[in-house]
Amino acid sequence: MTRPKHGGNLAWAAAIAGCPASFIRDFSASINPLGPPQRVLNAIEQGLQQLKSYPDPDYFQLRSSLAQYHQLEADYILPGNGSAELLTWASRELAQQKVTYLITPAFGDYWRALKAFNTNIFSHSLIPASPRLRVPASPLSSLLPDKPPNNSGLLLNNPHNPTGMLWTRAEILPYLEKFTLVVVDEAFMDFLPPEQEQSLISLIKDFPNLVILRSLTKFYSLPGLRIGYAIAHPERLQRWQQWRDPWSVNILAALAAEAAIEDREFQQQTWDWLLSARTKLFQGLASIPELQPLEGTANFLLVQTKISSQQLQETLLRQYYILIRDCLSFPELGDRYFRIAVRSPEENQQLIEAIEQAIIKESKL
Amino acid sequence: MTRPKHGGNLAWAAAIAGCPASFIRDFSASINPLGPPQRVLNAIEQGLQQLKSYPDPDYFQLRSSLAQYHQLEADYILPGNGSAELLTWASRELAQQKVTYLITPAFGDYWRALKAFNTNIFSHSLIPASPRLRVPASPLSSLLPDKPPNNSGLLLNNPHNPTGMLWTRAEILPYLEKFTLVVVDEAFMDFLPPEQEQSLISLIKDFPNLVILRSLTKFYSLPGLRIGYAIAHPERLQRWQQWRDPWSVNILAALAAEAAIEDREFQQQTWDWLLSARTKLFQGLASIPELQPLEGTANFLLVQTKISSQQLQETLLRQYYILIRDCLSFPELGDRYFRIAVRSPEENQQLIEAIEQAIIKESKL
Repeated sequence: MTRPKHGGNLAWAAAIAGCPASFIRDFSASINPLGPPQRVLNAIEQGLQQLKSYPDPDYFQLRSSLAQYHQLEADYILPGNGSAELLTWASRELAQQKVTYLITPAFGDYWRALKAFNTNIFSHSLIPASPRLRVPASPLSSLLPDKPPNNSGLLLNNPHNPTGMLWTRAEILPYLEKFTLVVVDEAFMDFLPPEQEQSLISLIKDFPNLVILRSLTKFYSLPGLRIGYAIAHPERLQRWQQWRDPWSVNILAALAAEAAIEDREFQQQTWDWLLSARTKLFQGLASIPELQPLEGTANFLLVQTKISSQQLQETLLRQYYILIRDCLSFPELGDRYFRIAVRSPEENQQLIEAIEQAIIKESKL
Repeated sequence: MTRPKHGGNLAWAAAIAGCPASFIRDFSASINPLGPPQRVLNAIEQGLQQLKSYPDPDYFQLRSSLAQYHQLEADYILPGNGSAELLTWASRELAQQKVTYLITPAFGDYWRALKAFNTNIFSHSLIPASPRLRVPASPLSSLLPDKPPNNSGLLLNNPHNPTGMLWTRAEILPYLEKFTLVVVDEAFMDFLPPEQEQSLISLIKDFPNLVILRSLTKFYSLPGLRIGYAIAHPERLQRWQQWRDPWSVNILAALAAEAAIEDREFQQQTWDWLLSARTKLFQGLASIPELQPLEGTANFLLVQTKISSQQLQETLLRQYYILIRDCLSFPELGDRYFRIAVRSPEENQQLIEAIEQAIIKESKL
């Protein structure tokens, strides 16, 4: 089996660990360990009755719920088969620009989607030549041109995966004026509590050149179901709808999404868990001399390592059935970084202990 | 609400009928009334446990099951988010041909998909100038050029929707030699029993220019879940995989598909039901002087009508909560045709009686 380019590939991990996929403790996919919320599961189960019907091609109820949640009109929202599907259509539009700027390391599927439509990509790494990443985030002004050429596109990920860096709304705002098309993937933004989040959704009406991509599968732990949405001006979204088939979102995903965004209790629980669990996980990792975690703002941490991350990944898999995300698919990071999802305090502690054991064993070889 | 371009739009129908969507007896979407099979529902329910994980981007298990079912290798199969998703990618390749031939009337989404990539379409109607359609099927030789120009594409639907006509394998075969790319949508082929079906799947290895699209949602009554697949040469399918995101098929759909194709009992039940129910429905419709049904081979019948189908649709909806498929979205058919799905013998009988009543009322106005 070839090494996967994305996290969460349990079939691959189980084959290496030599155990059933359900045994794997998955720190490689950045999924909320508290979910899925019970009321979302209830909505899905009730929805099983409706599988005999086609989804409403207008997704009227779902779009209305999402619109209300974001204080927008339904026309500004297009649900998708995961935000990954919508990235494909966003990329088709980015490909029409003369050049599209991409900050790296970048989520592997950005490259796939941009290349699918032969986008002219200009990539700039936020990893400095110096051996350690800077904390806090690299300012956008050091990463993007002050005066991009005419017809330039920008694909931005905020918070940024895999570093967990967050750019502020104020910092991004000037670039909405400078670029012809700006696509901001906010797949992890909902992990930030309301007083800290930096979503551009409130700006959407003023910027017809802005597209925001949101995911519901990470926060609500439903990556198997596929549900995300785009926020953009109506004409753009109507155009995208002509590019894809009319029933892109399955009925269960639509019902799950409606139930999910109404679950304020689950949202608060997640924010409470994440702040405390991430802080403790960070401290645990920082206390290991071979490791240097970055201060991430989302539900994952990027960790710089003095030992081979590939070796560490294999040892953790074979000996502890623990899967971490190697960074070999990010050329800027390679074997000296790995990424881990924040999980429950107990699991995080187990991970730290397993890593400590693995490093001791390595050093004895 | 605007008039839908596809069947199965219950939200629209319920608004007109003034009843909940669940009250509508839907003859507009051609879905098997016997399904979903219980073992498919069981597979879906068990799959709810797995929603926290991403689907396997290789869909190895699903592709292997489908391959075994069709006596092929897994590389020849690409599952999709409904066959409608795969039509989009097939259309991207048809658009690269100088011209693509399309027999009309055609499923509305063909036009959407072909236009999405600016395909140069040459359409030819199988509806003759004479007032009645001929039975049996118009021969392909009367519809397609004997010598198409170089780099010509062909998008064929077999059995044909909405007429229900079936072309034989032998009749299609010569066109695989003549056209540069042939896409055959076999969405309804599984409704034909093994001794009658005319699928091109057995020819796939000999024709790298052939793409076959198959749906699982119609036969197994799962349109809400979205699952279909393409059969083609591996290089082509690998290219498509780079065009779309890695997790296009949700986990429940993948599990449902695996369970569905193994359910030989359900398949036999469906063939038994369809032959007898369709024959009786045909006879019932033919006995109404204002109507002339076509002898379809799939699970639906196209009916020519002397009275307005739009009027009839509205009366059936408001008075009987019965939804039939008007043909206004097929320009060749317009107000003088409607399409109905074959349902249970009892429901089919109710439909015939409701139509008779509606026509009597119309004639009294």
